[in-house]
Amino acid sequence: MQNTSVDQLIQYLAKLPGLGPRSARRAVLHLIKRQDGLLRPLIKVMGDVADEIQVCGTCGNVDTNDPCAVCRDVRRDHKIICVVEDVADLWALERTAVFKGVYHVLGGTLSALDGVGPDDLNIPALVRRTERDDVGEVVLALSATVDGQTTAHYITECINRDAINVTALAHGVPVGGELDYLDEGTLTTALRARREVM
Amino acid sequence: MQNTSVDQLIQYLAKLPGLGPRSARRAVLHLIKRQDGLLRPLIKVMGDVADEIQVCGTCGNVDTNDPCAVCRDVRRDHKIICVVEDVADLWALERTAVFKGVYHVLGGTLSALDGVGPDDLNIPALVRRTERDDVGEVVLALSATVDGQTTAHYITECINRDAINVTALAHGVPVGGELDYLDEGTLTTALRARREVM
Repeated sequence: MQNTSVDQLIQYLAKLPGLGPRSARRAVLHLIKRQDGLLRPLIKVMGDVADEIQVCGTCGNVDTNDPCAVCRDVRRDHKIICVVEDVADLWALERTAVFKGVYHVLGGTLSALDGVGPDDLNIPALVRRTERDDVGEVVLALSATVDGQTTAHYITECINRDAINVTALAHGVPVGGELDYLDEGTLTTALRARREVM
Repeated sequence: MQNTSVDQLIQYLAKLPGLGPRSARRAVLHLIKRQDGLLRPLIKVMGDVADEIQVCGTCGNVDTNDPCAVCRDVRRDHKIICVVEDVADLWALERTAVFKGVYHVLGGTLSALDGVGPDDLNIPALVRRTERDDVGEVVLALSATVDGQTTAHYITECINRDAINVTALAHGVPVGGELDYLDEGTLTTALRARREVM
């Protein structure tokens, strides 16, 4: 019953993660009501992103420049590379503002089930990077899933451990997490990795 | 830490209903990964909507034409006007494909708390419409809230009931609803409006 452009907009918005047809309709009405305040600025900034965005040739981050802002930052420690699955993970780590090294985005994890092998990921580039640059530590910040840990294991095998330290994120009880709600795997890991109280 | 255009896009998307900062970030990464398949078509169709969309001068619906497709449709019964709060409600009723009359969008409900009076809504235009066109029935499809029912009451007072039938949506148990989960108000209404089984 609706005209085509509104219908099309609903269909495209419904493809975004977190939006279904119902919330896409709400979003479209919200946009139509706020043409100058939201719809037109959104079109403008989407156009900017589409025109400017590129993938960093060094680490795989997305940025308006190549190399990206992280790789260009001389105040960061380029001797420490943090390996992540996805740009979203890189952003999540950056929000902590704790890690001062650089990143390497794999673009996924090894997965026998989905037929993802080492050459489908950014692993060869990581190995070349560790050999070429004077890298001292590789931090594996991968998911604590079977695929994530398989990938971590594979990467560890590929890297020359005589010259480079390979570390991984600590597993344990999440900050703010209640023991009651945690699975046995996490509790077992947290118990085994227990540390003396300072 | 991110570049400006990506950051801005996240901020604008987070203003959409149903999206917060976290899901906006996910949506932006999704868009960046699908530039040709999603981001650019979305920009195009948003531009179309921004350029074409207008509010129907007769009923208040949004459409690429004024009067809108519903008001222009000669197969519809222009003697029955269904009064809704919002365009979203109009769309919801249209999806049922049961109502064959035309609509009138109020743009909200009367609200003493929010200072919304009759002149802030599309009520005077509705009254003029019922007087000018040969209207036989006004269907009040307003929310079953205090404000919705106040608005329904006010509209009923404004309309010449000697010439025009004023009706309202039936209240009762929603189709598929379990009695156990319904509030007392709905159950009371459903019980009072009970009908003989055919």
